[in-house]
Amino acid sequence: MQQRIEADYLIETAIDVRKAAEIMAGEQSSGTFIALPLETPDLIERSAARVEHVEEIDTVAAPSLPGATGDQGKGWQRAKVTLSWPFETLGASLPNLVSTVAGNLYELRPFSGLRLLDIRLPEAFATAYPGPRFGVAGTRALTGVQEGPVIGTIVKPSVGLNAEGTAELVATLAGAGIDFVKDDELQSDGSACPFADRASAVMRVINELADRTGKKVMFAFNLTGEIDEMRRRHDLVRDLGGTCVMVNLNSVGVSGFLGLSRHSELPIHAHRNGWGYLSRHPALGWSYTAWSKIWRLAGADHMHVNGLANKFCEDDASVLASATAQLTPIWKAKPCIAMPVFSSGQTVLQPPETYRGLGTTDLIYAAGGGIMGHPDGVAAGVESLREAWAAAVAGEDPDDRATRHPHLARALAQARGR
Amino acid sequence: MQQRIEADYLIETAIDVRKAAEIMAGEQSSGTFIALPLETPDLIERSAARVEHVEEIDTVAAPSLPGATGDQGKGWQRAKVTLSWPFETLGASLPNLVSTVAGNLYELRPFSGLRLLDIRLPEAFATAYPGPRFGVAGTRALTGVQEGPVIGTIVKPSVGLNAEGTAELVATLAGAGIDFVKDDELQSDGSACPFADRASAVMRVINELADRTGKKVMFAFNLTGEIDEMRRRHDLVRDLGGTCVMVNLNSVGVSGFLGLSRHSELPIHAHRNGWGYLSRHPALGWSYTAWSKIWRLAGADHMHVNGLANKFCEDDASVLASATAQLTPIWKAKPCIAMPVFSSGQTVLQPPETYRGLGTTDLIYAAGGGIMGHPDGVAAGVESLREAWAAAVAGEDPDDRATRHPHLARALAQARGR
Repeated sequence: MQQRIEADYLIETAIDVRKAAEIMAGEQSSGTFIALPLETPDLIERSAARVEHVEEIDTVAAPSLPGATGDQGKGWQRAKVTLSWPFETLGASLPNLVSTVAGNLYELRPFSGLRLLDIRLPEAFATAYPGPRFGVAGTRALTGVQEGPVIGTIVKPSVGLNAEGTAELVATLAGAGIDFVKDDELQSDGSACPFADRASAVMRVINELADRTGKKVMFAFNLTGEIDEMRRRHDLVRDLGGTCVMVNLNSVGVSGFLGLSRHSELPIHAHRNGWGYLSRHPALGWSYTAWSKIWRLAGADHMHVNGLANKFCEDDASVLASATAQLTPIWKAKPCIAMPVFSSGQTVLQPPETYRGLGTTDLIYAAGGGIMGHPDGVAAGVESLREAWAAAVAGEDPDDRATRHPHLARALAQARGR
Repeated sequence: MQQRIEADYLIETAIDVRKAAEIMAGEQSSGTFIALPLETPDLIERSAARVEHVEEIDTVAAPSLPGATGDQGKGWQRAKVTLSWPFETLGASLPNLVSTVAGNLYELRPFSGLRLLDIRLPEAFATAYPGPRFGVAGTRALTGVQEGPVIGTIVKPSVGLNAEGTAELVATLAGAGIDFVKDDELQSDGSACPFADRASAVMRVINELADRTGKKVMFAFNLTGEIDEMRRRHDLVRDLGGTCVMVNLNSVGVSGFLGLSRHSELPIHAHRNGWGYLSRHPALGWSYTAWSKIWRLAGADHMHVNGLANKFCEDDASVLASATAQLTPIWKAKPCIAMPVFSSGQTVLQPPETYRGLGTTDLIYAAGGGIMGHPDGVAAGVESLREAWAAAVAGEDPDDRATRHPHLARALAQARGR
């Protein structure tokens, strides 16, 4: 059983990589830049971080990040490094874990690149933290989607609709058979669309339809705010019969999120907006695998992963790695599986590759234009996405299936024509 | 009076910079990648973000960040761009402000660089948020330091001392006349040095000395954790007669911090560890000016700014800009001045340049080796720093002053010999 905290990093340095790793370990535990009189051998044995593994990768001619020292004209060595820390220094505390594995490291002078790739934690963290309370099974139970992906969309325009306007749009989407709708991440509780008004108006629509048809659309209400606000908004959603809340992770932070999560009785849809500033440079910041483990453990049920052939900078391999990470157990006894949320430019074109890469339909597939823009209407948009996924799962050419499903045929033509 | 929210960015793009700015504004308000049926002219007028200003800077040959599209072989244009948002969309909410000004922007494809430089907020934010409750005046009152910088140090080794070991070190430092001591950012509440034990042991030492001498050392106890933990630890420190708590901003997040700050009756010492992953690449992330405004408004009393000739990658101009930003009013009626904390390799050498750059001694000057390592002992280390600062303020050559102050002379020799 794992007793120490471990973290893997990609580093880039002009000095000896083993020495560079030792500098990281020193800075992030008992050491500092100078010799310390109280740093005794016994204290080091008890408290110091250890270099567990160093694996050289390759050498690059120019430093990836400015400001690094140590250039000897022999290029900049890249390596994968694993450090470990004694559990006793911080205990099972996610906020303090962040300080330990991602603290004052990124500005250390010998490094022209430093990125956190992964973390492994003692099982005491599994006991101390809730993990996703709903995850895949809970989301399927609440949406009634027992097979295939949960088909979802986003309220658009992102901002500008008032509560009644939002509810009207939801009525259209719910009437078209959608499983899931989310607020935009920019929409929380401004005076132009107050949270309580929006929640009441939207849930009136959703509850009425559920009473008539038995199908309750899951709406992720963006309650991003301060702790007391988030708890109050959560309670309102719950009392109105809602089945999901949404929060912007980078806007509330780990302790902010836990203030909601430990209180929550609903699935938490976790939005990663701002992720770009943590990850856009490949030699800096966080990998999504490492970062998402923090939030999964803290209780995120749905984690955004972008989508294949998306409208942002991220390539497909990175998207699939992020999604696979959400579906990979953290511990056997406590897997903390979060449902990956695919979005950004998703249409009927991406299901085959997405399914090939992931091997499961345990995901939320959110499309905007692919649903709202279908030439035969919103219901045809939803249906064409379900058919595209059914073809992907069956290993069938979508165009073959389209010969029997005209809505899929038109969706394919539209998506390819764009 | 400012009615809209404004943000300045550094951008780098191969497309027309005005068009690039419009894409940012669209993505971060009512627009998206596709035309929206509900996005009416009236809705846009009410809700859209606006491009307020575009100012071209220069052109670079290669993209600063990978993944950007639009290259036409004419280089990558850098520009300063100002966007604005209607207040009504989000209201006076710091968490939602973060989603708005630093959300899904950094991954937009036309950008090979995007960095948030500054933000300007309507005064409703000044009413909604506390700002620093103690700041410079409160910190001076509590430490009894009416002139010159507050001289501080850090408990070292960073981790590994138990509660009693920490208290013994504090006894030495307090006996030597230090004004301020802080926990290491890696030390919060592990079983190797539990928070309650450490706070009790340290405050016993500090209170005894205060009873004897009238001078109470300010100790910043690192209470980083979940909301309830932080509040409980804060209450303990207050009840023990402590005068400061410390929190790692990136570990708790904005909503986490506010959960502490709205409860706090003590100065909050805000640590920025992890700042490197938000800022190390000059064309990505956040400027400290923008980022620190969020925390100052949320109630941070002390903000870390690194130090001149520091041991990390940051250059002196950046350090001085960060420090100056903390001392620059956000609003005339509510300045939200936080006390800048200089640390990292600080000795008797940096006061002249620091004072020249800043023009004030309203700061905390934290030295480790410069105090603990003085050849004549810790008291001599503290005294030499005070003398170095007195010389800086008087415009006196430190070596001239050193002829009258042998402790300063030895400290200068030691620092230069390093």
